[in-house]
Order: sequence, then structure tokens, then C-alpha cells
Amino acid sequence: MMKLRLFTPGPTMVSPEALLEMAYPLDHHRTPGFKEMFKESTELLSYVFQTKALPLVLTGSGTAAMEGAIVGCCKPDTKTLVCHSGKFGERWVKILKRFKLPHVELTREYGHGIKAEAVADMFKKNPDIKAVIFVHSETSTCALSDAQGIAKIAREKGALTIVDGITSIGTLPFKMDEWGIDVAVTGSQKALMLPPGLGFAAVSDRAWEVIESHEAPCFYNDFKAYRKSQKEGDVPWTPNNQLVKGLRHTLRQIKAETMEAIWARSALMAKGTRAACKALGLSIYAADPVDSVTGINVPAGVADDAWRKTMRSKYGIHVASGQGELKGKMIRVNHMGYVDAVDTVGLIAAMEWTLAEQGYKFEMGAGTAAFIRVVSEGK
Amino acid sequence: MMKLRLFTPGPTMVSPEALLEMAYPLDHHRTPGFKEMFKESTELLSYVFQTKALPLVLTGSGTAAMEGAIVGCCKPDTKTLVCHSGKFGERWVKILKRFKLPHVELTREYGHGIKAEAVADMFKKNPDIKAVIFVHSETSTCALSDAQGIAKIAREKGALTIVDGITSIGTLPFKMDEWGIDVAVTGSQKALMLPPGLGFAAVSDRAWEVIESHEAPCFYNDFKAYRKSQKEGDVPWTPNNQLVKGLRHTLRQIKAETMEAIWARSALMAKGTRAACKALGLSIYAADPVDSVTGINVPAGVADDAWRKTMRSKYGIHVASGQGELKGKMIRVNHMGYVDAVDTVGLIAAMEWTLAEQGYKFEMGAGTAAFIRVVSEGK
Repeated sequence: MMKLRLFTPGPTMVSPEALLEMAYPLDHHRTPGFKEMFKESTELLSYVFQTKALPLVLTGSGTAAMEGAIVGCCKPDTKTLVCHSGKFGERWVKILKRFKLPHVELTREYGHGIKAEAVADMFKKNPDIKAVIFVHSETSTCALSDAQGIAKIAREKGALTIVDGITSIGTLPFKMDEWGIDVAVTGSQKALMLPPGLGFAAVSDRAWEVIESHEAPCFYNDFKAYRKSQKEGDVPWTPNNQLVKGLRHTLRQIKAETMEAIWARSALMAKGTRAACKALGLSIYAADPVDSVTGINVPAGVADDAWRKTMRSKYGIHVASGQGELKGKMIRVNHMGYVDAVDTVGLIAAMEWTLAEQGYKFEMGAGTAAFIRVVSEGK
Repeated sequence: MMKLRLFTPGPTMVSPEALLEMAYPLDHHRTPGFKEMFKESTELLSYVFQTKALPLVLTGSGTAAMEGAIVGCCKPDTKTLVCHSGKFGERWVKILKRFKLPHVELTREYGHGIKAEAVADMFKKNPDIKAVIFVHSETSTCALSDAQGIAKIAREKGALTIVDGITSIGTLPFKMDEWGIDVAVTGSQKALMLPPGLGFAAVSDRAWEVIESHEAPCFYNDFKAYRKSQKEGDVPWTPNNQLVKGLRHTLRQIKAETMEAIWARSALMAKGTRAACKALGLSIYAADPVDSVTGINVPAGVADDAWRKTMRSKYGIHVASGQGELKGKMIRVNHMGYVDAVDTVGLIAAMEWTLAEQGYKFEMGAGTAAFIRVVSEGK
């Protein structure tokens, strides 16, 4: 018997109900039935993004949606500020470079989030910045940036705010309209509890003004093409109707649970996991830890690869290693989407059993006990 | 009771077995199990493309794969010939224009395929052409172009051949290596019998030389990023692991049936459908009809919309209308993928029943009889 539990920060676990919903015979996308399903899905997505805008649904990954956001909002004759302190922020620099878009960079040490004050300083030195890009939850380091604070500064300075919300939207408190965010991007395989394959982008009226003012330098991920089709309940290129079917299902669940309850649940799982780590003598990688995914430093004497492999082979718990230079130095465990306290206490237990096998010294049961207390108090 | 049969030329029908395969719990894409599945899938894809190259698997539609092919093979300092006589060929012109890539156009009247001689003439006038783009099966007009002949001319002239094989590969005889094709592109929702969401591209060594010689002017659909990752059994952006799971399943079926048997089946379905149309006094739109999808002119006195809607509401048969200016003038019926003679005789029967309701005069049963004879003789 092998029960697999994906604790990776994407793809996250997909419920059997959602998988079966997607196993239902598929209809064509140019039918009243599909259009209705698509309309309902975009309306529910706007609830998740906390915006009045109807998000675009791209057939592609979150990177596709970020490419569309960048080529639409960052023009060859304007300056963009890109903030990064991890692999995903670095990817957005690569996109800016690829399209030869002028930009300045604000970096911080890995594990630290981007603060509003640092962004304000960049505006002092570069008052001509017209767009600010940052990653709300940097999945590679499990660190949180101050989305609300950064958006406030950008709005005051008349610049657009573009947020990679791929591992934040649907998990962390995120209020697009209230915070004044202009483009927010996510993907299907994180908090939205689906397989990978769809990217989403919500766009403010201010951002549309910029996007509509020029021709995007790419074709497939051109937001204008998506906007034009979506007004007619359609998409420019053949959509993944299977994932849209699953999307309506998971979004209805999210609406029923409410965003506030989901935000509270993710925060509690993260808090409990951090408490468990502390009780086990394990340290957290990020100085500014995020509540969607926790990065735990691999303790001295423990072989990262063997630790993770045993967790999977013996207990069906699949956690991620670090990315790039952080590979082997940390494990990352997910709190997004279809994962609850029972799953997570199982993860902590599996960590304890496998750490003991590695000869790591700790009081057996201390991690699960700490987790259980946090959850008990949090309820 | 409503049994839906998608006779649209994409998305085509997906088998219950494939849907259930994709409803199986999903694993992470960075696991030995996924890598093995991915490797097997790309090897089986190379059989479908009839090439020794391992095709790239893009999370996106066929359009994503065409964007990647065009920005990789068509450079700002070289001239491309784009041949078109339908909506899809016109889309590739739009991509060339969007990326400001120099090109000349060869057009023909809608319904006609592109011939090798016309391409040879273009080379006489433009000996500096370095790449030729055309659509093997133009889905919007249901017309066939001479892929083998065009590739031969291009190869003689030292130019690359880029083929939109979205509604040909896996259905029509297509021999990438033997014919000397350099880039061949298709999508998951046609002959490969899956929902939309994956694009595929096979690339020759000659094409890689050009692609590797410069930086692509886009990021998401950059073939170089895909090639680099795929060498390690990986993909650059999170892949749709659900569709890859389905892909291995359908490709195994294709391999077991053999390409030759599938080519023969599609050809027989198309031949039978054309014979049925003739027996019913209906005409075929294309002068050069293709065997993957048949475009039937809506006869005088028949209301296209009502005809199609009744076919669906009464008999569960969903056929497509024409695209763009051909909307309302034709219906298009699919012969790709998971569709056999029993399905197709049902389609012909539904056409007869609904044409009779529309007051169209014909001998009831003549269409199905003609279809049945063709299939009987073809076996």
C-alpha cells in the first residue's frame, strides 16, 4: 500500500472529486454550456483575487501569465523596477531582459522579503519608474514580501504594480482592489487545487490603459487578444476545457469555504509547522517566512536526499528540496490548497520518524505535540 | 438521455479510458516515475511524427508551438515565405508581423491547397528565402497542401520547412524525416485524442542550428529552454502532468494500432463521408479536400444554425460551422482520433434526419448507404 501525499509547493494535491469532475465527458468550448461555466469561473476567480476585474484564463503556466503581464505593462520607453530575492523574482528579470525592456533591480538576500521602504528608496533614485514587479510569496525561499505596502508606494508614485501571486493568491490575504494592485498573476496548480496548465491574470483599468496603448512584442500571451475574446465568453486559442471544468468545481468549494477561512487555515498550518520545527530543534530558512510554504533547513548530519526519499518511500509524503543553490540545504512543505491539519500532522510525524532514522537527536513526539497545540488553540 | 458525440475538428472525442487515466492520482513532475512516463511519451511522439527527433512538449496550445517555431527559425535578418489560404495560415502571418520578421506571402483562394510548383515559383522570385511556413491541413477550409512536395523544394533551396500539422499529424500520412521537414507542430486535442492544453514540436538538426544561432525574441515559448530541460527529462515551466499522463495512454494505443492503420481509417472515413454527401446532393467546400476533416457546403434553403443545433439537441452530434467569413456557409465534420465507422455512419444518419426536417429534398437513406458501401469495400 502506498498513499501518496504531495506536499510540494506546486503541483499541490488535487482532490478525487476534482479529478472525477475532469473525467466527465468533455464538451466543446464554443457552446452555451461552456460559456456559462467559463463565466461563472471568472466571476469566482475575481472573488479569489478580491477584485471587480474578471481575470483572464490562459492556457499555459504562471510563467505565461507573467510574460503577458510584463510585455503588456512594461514598455520599451519606460522604466520598470523589478524586486527580487529568489529564483522566481530572477525569472522576471530574465523576461525583462529577453524583451529588452529598460529596468532597475532591487535585490535582497535570499530568505528576505521586499519591504515597502526599500521600494520607496528606489523611487527616490528613479522617479521615472512606471511599473513595479515583485513576488508576493517567493516559493524558492519561502519568504513573504509586503504586497500592500509596495502597492501603496507605487500607486502614490503613479506606477503600476505587477504581482507574482502564484503561491499567494488563494492562500494568503490578498486584496487586489483594496491594495491598489494593477496586475496579479497566479496558476492552477497551487491554491486553486488543480493540475498545472492554466495561468490567470487580473488586470486593473489603469493597467489596461497601458496595455492598450501599444502592441505587445509577443503573440501567444498577448493580454489584448485574451481580453477581446473573453468579452464574448471566449478565449483566443483553444482553451483547456478539462481544467476549466475542474476550475469551476474547486472555485465553488473555495467560495463555500470563504477566503477568510482559507487564509486562516493556511496561516494556522504554517504556524503549527514552524512551532513543530522549533520543538524539534529545526530552523526555518526564511527571515520573513510566508504562510503558503515553509522552508526548513536540513540539520547538520542529515542527508537531505535520503531524508526526503525515505519520507516518500515509507510514508508517501513528498516534500520538495530547495531550488538552485538551495538544493540539498532545505526542504519545502506546502500549506496551499487541498491540505488540512490531519494531512499536516502526518507530515510532521513522518519528519520525526525519518529524522530519527538519520540519527538526528530530538525528543520523539515533540513536533507533533507542538503542532497539535497550535491547531487546538487556533480553532 | 443525451449522448454527446463531438464531431468538431478539435477538440475531438476523448475516450472514457483516457479520461479515467487522467483521473488517477497525480504525481509530481520531478520524480523518476514522471520522467520515465515523459520519456516514453516523447519516444512514442517521435513515432507519430515519423522522426528520430524527440518532440518538445509545451504547456500551451498548437499556437504556442507555432510561435516557438517561428521565432526560433525565422530571424530578423532572413526572409520567410508564408503560404496561406485559410484562417490558420493567416494566423502565422500575424505572428511574423507581430515579431516584425521579414516575409513574403503566397496565397491561394480558400479551399485550395498550396502546391509545390507555386512554392518553387516564389523561390525563383525570392532566392533569399530561408524558411517556408505552411499549413498541411487547413482546418478552416478543410483543404490539403502538398507537404512532401513543398518540403522537397525548400530542402533543395537550402531553406527550412515549418509545418503546421495540427490537424494532420497522427491522421494523414506524415513522414517528417523522409520528407525532409524541419519543424512540425501539433496539439493534444486533435489526432492525439486528448483535451486541449499541450502543444508539440519536432525539430530537425538543421532547424536547431538556426534556433541555437540567436536569442528568441520571446520567453515562454522559447524552444531552446525546452530543449535544455528536456535533455534532463524535464520541462522549463511546470508541465501539465495530467495531460502527459493521458498522452502516454493515447500514444500507446496509437502505437498498437500503427500509424498506417490510422492513416487508412481516417482516409476511409473521409472518403465515405464524401460519398455520402454526393449521394445526398451535397457539395464539398474544398477543391483539395483533406482526409482529417470534411467541410460540407450548407445547401440552399437550409438554415445552417438550425441544422447544426438540431443535430446536437436531437442526436448528440456536434459539428462545427465555418470560421470567419465561412461561418454559416459550411459544416465541418471530424475524422481525427477517437472516431470510427460506427460513429460516422451515425453522423451521416443524423445529417439525413435533420436535413429532412429542414425541407431539403433527397432520397432518405442514400447517404448512409453510400457511406456503408465505401467502408465495406475499403476493408
